[in-house]
Amino acid sequence: MPTIIPPSLEAAITHLSKLPTIGRRSAERLAFHLLKAPKTQVEELASALLTMREKLIRCSHCHHICEQDPCPICRDTQRDPKILCVVEDPLDVLAIETAGVFGGKYHILGGCLSPLKGVTASDLNLHTLDARVEQEGVTELILAMNPSVEGEATILFLTDRFRSRGIRVSRIALGLPMGGSLEHADGQTLEHALRGRRDA
Amino acid sequence: MPTIIPPSLEAAITHLSKLPTIGRRSAERLAFHLLKAPKTQVEELASALLTMREKLIRCSHCHHICEQDPCPICRDTQRDPKILCVVEDPLDVLAIETAGVFGGKYHILGGCLSPLKGVTASDLNLHTLDARVEQEGVTELILAMNPSVEGEATILFLTDRFRSRGIRVSRIALGLPMGGSLEHADGQTLEHALRGRRDA
Repeated sequence: MPTIIPPSLEAAITHLSKLPTIGRRSAERLAFHLLKAPKTQVEELASALLTMREKLIRCSHCHHICEQDPCPICRDTQRDPKILCVVEDPLDVLAIETAGVFGGKYHILGGCLSPLKGVTASDLNLHTLDARVEQEGVTELILAMNPSVEGEATILFLTDRFRSRGIRVSRIALGLPMGGSLEHADGQTLEHALRGRRDA
Repeated sequence: MPTIIPPSLEAAITHLSKLPTIGRRSAERLAFHLLKAPKTQVEELASALLTMREKLIRCSHCHHICEQDPCPICRDTQRDPKILCVVEDPLDVLAIETAGVFGGKYHILGGCLSPLKGVTASDLNLHTLDARVEQEGVTELILAMNPSVEGEATILFLTDRFRSRGIRVSRIALGLPMGGSLEHADGQTLEHALRGRRDA
């Protein structure tokens, strides 16, 4: 039986299915969609991906992605440079910025400590964090790691490293999400919610 | 507040979120994945999409996608040219071919009759189907439309059109899928399963 999928289509499907959350079937559907779509749409998509990969760099201060170093957030004089929110990666910055609830600056660690995955302190953006704490008069580090074993380990490590230098080290609260229900919350979340209780 | 998402990243996200089933959040994740991935992966993906769009054409016989006209299935002399399986689009050919249960040839209609969406007989690949029935000694048309109101309308239309010319017109069976349970089947499926019963 001759191959039923033409090689160029197969190649596109293979490359699409390398993307996260895209399985073989989804990749087939995306490829067929792009076959039916106007040619310009495919050209625009391809060129947008290449341009993005070409233009985006890392900010040498906070390691956020940007087109110009330093990034707009680091350049923003309206923001309080004394409070740094430390996050794992750029998507976390987007989440916090979208909420519009933080007026300080950020530092992207580039991951979390994970002995199992072989991620040690030297793999994280710590030198630049040390330097910023020294040079920018930072008074508080807000640790906004994802709730996980690795996140906890990283929080312990950073707290230990910076508290001794007289910096306030805080961590974002864990508890019930808005709209979540007590009934369906897991035990760990409830434990954190209770331990983190405040006077009403 | 300065824009937090660099324009080139925003452009990539916008173009990715135009794809079916990809929402804004998924598009953000895909874009960030591609930012972290090796540059060659992005280049290969972009070029695979462009090459696919460039190379693939429609077979002038059956309207299946292919790189060479006629397509490998139409060229395949091992297949019975007298039995045509009529489907809505190329993905349906893939599904049937993957199952490996059909040894005839295909004809892609390019959709189904749908007055609501403004799809009329003139929008479907009927001229070529007429011509093939005339010229290729077709004895049976197997209608493999998706089970839907439009599919039913199209089956009625095609049956009417070809049965009068002495062609056997059949339709694939509707019933319980393998692994499905009677308990969870909908009423219409059960009705079709009962009506289509065969001696055991």
